[in-house]
Amino acid sequence: MIKVGIVGGTGYTGVELLRLLAAHPGAEIQVITSRSEKGLPVADMYPNLRGHLDLVFSEPDMAVLKKCDLVFFATPNGIAMTMARELVNAGVKVIDLAADFRIKDIEEWSKWYGMEHACPELVKQAVYGLPEVNKAEIKNAQLIANPGCYPTAVQLGLLPLIEKGLIDTDNLIADAKSGVSGAGRTASVGTLQAESSENFKAYAVAGHRHLPEIKQGLMLANKAEVGLTFVPHLVPMIRGIHATCYATLNTNGKDSKAELQSIYEKYYANEVFVDVMPAGSLPETRTVKGANHCRMAIHVPQDGDTVVILSVIDNLVKGAAGQAVQNMNIMFGLNEDAGLTAIALVP
Amino acid sequence: MIKVGIVGGTGYTGVELLRLLAAHPGAEIQVITSRSEKGLPVADMYPNLRGHLDLVFSEPDMAVLKKCDLVFFATPNGIAMTMARELVNAGVKVIDLAADFRIKDIEEWSKWYGMEHACPELVKQAVYGLPEVNKAEIKNAQLIANPGCYPTAVQLGLLPLIEKGLIDTDNLIADAKSGVSGAGRTASVGTLQAESSENFKAYAVAGHRHLPEIKQGLMLANKAEVGLTFVPHLVPMIRGIHATCYATLNTNGKDSKAELQSIYEKYYANEVFVDVMPAGSLPETRTVKGANHCRMAIHVPQDGDTVVILSVIDNLVKGAAGQAVQNMNIMFGLNEDAGLTAIALVP
Amino acid sequence: MIKVGIVGGTGYTGVELLRLLAAHPGAEIQVITSRSEKGLPVADMYPNLRGHLDLVFSEPDMAVLKKCDLVFFATPNGIAMTMARELVNAGVKVIDLAADFRIKDIEEWSKWYGMEHACPELVKQAVYGLPEVNKAEIKNAQLIANPGCYPTAVQLGLLPLIEKGLIDTDNLIADAKSGVSGAGRTASVGTLQAESSENFKAYAVAGHRHLPEIKQGLMLANKAEVGLTFVPHLVPMIRGIHATCYATLNTNGKDSKAELQSIYEKYYANEVFVDVMPAGSLPETRTVKGANHCRMAIHVPQDGDTVVILSVIDNLVKGAAGQAVQNMNIMFGLNEDAGLTAIALVP
Amino acid sequence: MIKVGIVGGTGYTGVELLRLLAAHPGAEIQVITSRSEKGLPVADMYPNLRGHLDLVFSEPDMAVLKKCDLVFFATPNGIAMTMARELVNAGVKVIDLAADFRIKDIEEWSKWYGMEHACPELVKQAVYGLPEVNKAEIKNAQLIANPGCYPTAVQLGLLPLIEKGLIDTDNLIADAKSGVSGAGRTASVGTLQAESSENFKAYAVAGHRHLPEIKQGLMLANKAEVGLTFVPHLVPMIRGIHATCYATLNTNGKDSKAELQSIYEKYYANEVFVDVMPAGSLPETRTVKGANHCRMAIHVPQDGDTVVILSVIDNLVKGAAGQAVQNMNIMFGLNEDAGLTAIALVP
Repeated sequence: MIKVGIVGGTGYTGVELLRLLAAHPGAEIQVITSRSEKGLPVADMYPNLRGHLDLVFSEPDMAVLKKCDLVFFATPNGIAMTMARELVNAGVKVIDLAADFRIKDIEEWSKWYGMEHACPELVKQAVYGLPEVNKAEIKNAQLIANPGCYPTAVQLGLLPLIEKGLIDTDNLIADAKSGVSGAGRTASVGTLQAESSENFKAYAVAGHRHLPEIKQGLMLANKAEVGLTFVPHLVPMIRGIHATCYATLNTNGKDSKAELQSIYEKYYANEVFVDVMPAGSLPETRTVKGANHCRMAIHVPQDGDTVVILSVIDNLVKGAAGQAVQNMNIMFGLNEDAGLTAIALVP
Repeated sequence: MIKVGIVGGTGYTGVELLRLLAAHPGAEIQVITSRSEKGLPVADMYPNLRGHLDLVFSEPDMAVLKKCDLVFFATPNGIAMTMARELVNAGVKVIDLAADFRIKDIEEWSKWYGMEHACPELVKQAVYGLPEVNKAEIKNAQLIANPGCYPTAVQLGLLPLIEKGLIDTDNLIADAKSGVSGAGRTASVGTLQAESSENFKAYAVAGHRHLPEIKQGLMLANKAEVGLTFVPHLVPMIRGIHATCYATLNTNGKDSKAELQSIYEKYYANEVFVDVMPAGSLPETRTVKGANHCRMAIHVPQDGDTVVILSVIDNLVKGAAGQAVQNMNIMFGLNEDAGLTAIALVP
Repeated sequence: MIKVGIVGGTGYTGVELLRLLAAHPGAEIQVITSRSEKGLPVADMYPNLRGHLDLVFSEPDMAVLKKCDLVFFATPNGIAMTMARELVNAGVKVIDLAADFRIKDIEEWSKWYGMEHACPELVKQAVYGLPEVNKAEIKNAQLIANPGCYPTAVQLGLLPLIEKGLIDTDNLIADAKSGVSGAGRTASVGTLQAESSENFKAYAVAGHRHLPEIKQGLMLANKAEVGLTFVPHLVPMIRGIHATCYATLNTNGKDSKAELQSIYEKYYANEVFVDVMPAGSLPETRTVKGANHCRMAIHVPQDGDTVVILSVIDNLVKGAAGQAVQNMNIMFGLNEDAGLTAIALVP
Repeated sequence: MIKVGIVGGTGYTGVELLRLLAAHPGAEIQVITSRSEKGLPVADMYPNLRGHLDLVFSEPDMAVLKKCDLVFFATPNGIAMTMARELVNAGVKVIDLAADFRIKDIEEWSKWYGMEHACPELVKQAVYGLPEVNKAEIKNAQLIANPGCYPTAVQLGLLPLIEKGLIDTDNLIADAKSGVSGAGRTASVGTLQAESSENFKAYAVAGHRHLPEIKQGLMLANKAEVGLTFVPHLVPMIRGIHATCYATLNTNGKDSKAELQSIYEKYYANEVFVDVMPAGSLPETRTVKGANHCRMAIHVPQDGDTVVILSVIDNLVKGAAGQAVQNMNIMFGLNEDAGLTAIALVP
């Protein structure tokens, strides 16, 4: 059994980690920390865990964490970078579900996250934990930067087109929509049900922190700059991300139009968590609610030059805690889907 | 035109007052105060008011308020009682949408609201603004205690049965359900959409502040004590209250069973805002969404001894701002429904 | 492995059975029938099952069903009673998720369900599958009448009070609220999202089919008649039932008031799926979303004579498919919670 | 008072017309027809109209309709084209809220709507009722083709850019999102609350009927072909459309980047129902819920070459019934906003 610690388990990615790990056949939660809730039984905060998990939130204690095989950080941005060094040095593997190690360009990171980086040298060492791209590196990684939710949905959707050189990469558009749990479990007026339900809006059009993360991934695949307009929207539902990605087919792409479906199917043929749906499909976010799958479909409307990729994930699972567990499985040589076989809850 | 001031207009009852008064044919908003938002155009906070209202939040200023004919308090509990005295003395009429003047028993009030009353002598003078009960007093009132949302729905539902002596008043049950806007526009985890949507729960079962208010009204009608169990629930929708009231018919009631429908119809025959629906009806909260109506239906299931009253209102309109405007209309001799003729938004 | 057949798997209880059985460690779905969808892969109708279940809907075929160890009927009322006889005779165990075998009084059944019963002699033989009441009989049953959703929530809530003789059983009130999935996966205007969301209403106040089922269970416990007013309401959410049950404590009950909590805890001490929450708790439906638990809390508001029981279940799990699987586990000697250990999806 | 008739008033655009016209100061509903509901009081179907409207659905009767000054068709596609001729000949003005007269190219219309056109010569005569474009023609029109919901939001958003020649019109993208009331009040599984709530999906990606309508409008402005990819999505809310439109600035556009905001403000300076919000704004659909406004904002993310227009309307008001009333007002010389001054219901 992998001995697991969780730092900062009171938010939505934290409780989702608990849900997944409490039922995981190969892992055992040793400790879960929360400064503010120390002493509180986890199941008092999340009564859905009553009868499943007997842990109590405790104050973060490095000595205890060092006894774990793996520590997950489900903390706000800026915490993991202050604690990871010591754990890594002690031989503990670390998966950060926040953004501290995602952006390789430290200056860029500081610009978007508004703080100085406490541990730039670890950024270089960190592996970006998108298993469908970096599985080999993840296997041997000591430190994983678990991807953001939007970046997971958008990259998985666009990578095949870019790697195969089928599209004009100067004018990519990712029109993305997220359920409100993406905003986290923090008291705020904007995501009160009376405010965000029965409403739809774009936000952060001027620039969202996930933009540099997505661009970094696409540029690596493109081996060149990419132009990307990324507009996130808030959907009045709890879970789910739907990315609608638009690109213009270039000459290569026009030639390959008829084969786009099979190109995608081959690209993800060995990926247990990516479901390339049959041509013409319309993926629904609810078909991945609570599940670690990314389902996608490829469209070329009116047989024109614009390709449209529809890609859906559960922002808390494949977009956060589920992908973290997937990374853990790979790091420790378990089946990639261990503890992640649950079927989405429909209806 | 009635010159109107609003103290504390940033919450949901405040914006609802603005919506109603901005379109009111006989009133004109002179000033709206908010200490925290002073200087902010109202329409910047509530863009639905763009093009309809050109006001800016200002710091509360007694001199300005005294120039109004009427001041509404859409403030948290405990504010109006510190300011009403001076306004009343200056001849300004006052309607408090909070609870400061609702409970005649000062000690009881302090127990439930957890503070000392700053102005007990005004409580005596205040008229409880439930127009279907106190219209004559409201006409001449200087100070109105605008009823709570649950108390409006429950009292309107039960009063005819009690006044006519048809039920056992020792064991009344009001199982009430409210949309989340009832919790106000305050950042809080419990009413985040990710928490309160797709969920249903009871709350404050041990005792809710509206309990003494409801009991006070029922006791006045009963001219004796009443026994009431009041259980509020949170409904995953924005607006609306549905009260399901249960009572056991006493001998009088059993005799009158066949006439209950017409007893209710007569009781409310002259009330423009109470709609006694045809026998067998099932009132839906959406039929009063945005409207000042209370719709109700009387049932005696299985022709037994238990009478069930279903009563619905919009908590922000008949349960708050609409009723306040109705009180204003009565106080100033306007048509009772002036500015309140909007049809509920369905779907 | 138990060989399982499902008759009529296209509705919500059907797909929920699929979700639970596809992941069940001790059962294997052999066949799923649907006359209207014959030939359609199950995962085409429910894409959440893609990658999890490789079955195709087939026309009902008695020969195939007879090869199963157990057949679930997830059909509309009136179907199971025409097919169960032959299966039972062939030694196949049967669990009917509809209402055909729930009511022992055939005449009463016909009155509420509007048809003649095709197989009255099997009704006598059928065991009412509420495991917390009938576990021993279920163990040896050939035919299970799986309880309705409301009856499960209400009976589990009230049975301890009745069996212990603590309440006046002449005037019980069950004010129950259900999510819209309870209305089934049938095209209808009333449960369109544009109609049922942002709305709350009571329905079937004059009489609901679950009333005789609940009364039958309570009367068995009471060994005498009971008086029950049952008012169901429609909640704008997908899953969940919340029953708010009211009863007046009699002399025994008043004496035992302080012990109510421990009476409940003892009553359900050995039941893995009933969670008597700590005194003062407010059970939320979301804490059982997708899970087979019934969570409940006991309240005596204001320390009066009215006891209030709050009881929540997921109508599709403990109120339907989950309870059916629980019954299967008991019938076949598996752990009662086999395949039912999933944690509720929160948020 | 304008004498108004409504043909087919049982759907959502019908009831919305009723809501608006019942309170309209210059119009009076004479007759509302519905073959299926003939004899039913309108307020029995829509209890929100109780006390506001005393009409009964009647069978369509040409003699009665001819006595009206204006007849609205709130019917499914294909009905108005069979009745309009006779009304127009009789001097009655006609506004069709369906699509029968929207597309000038009859063949194109037939392709998308799957029927032959019964009255092609009237299509030529019909004026496309987008007041912000065709006000002069509407004034004198006998027959109005009331625009579709998506076409209203998208055209209002893109027209200024196209008319001013600021963008590359070969690769326009309109990523549009609509609430579920857009699917109409027809029993269907796909828009049951248990299916469409807590879900997000694209639909009709291969081609939606509103595509040719939008292109027709944009091409008229462009005086040349346009290339448009239009992807509609279903949002789990009742009302509202949010169009996110993307275009690449051409040389003219790059030069004018700094002036885009003022270009839009000037373009719509005289339009009472178009609100060009301040630079940087994020229009929310709820700010137009129940109101006839279109609110929009112009963005150039990262100061790049892609311009993003956000445009929101209420699909049932500015996208249907409200725009129809606006057209009526213009046709009969009333104030353009007569009966349309309601403030959006927030929250």
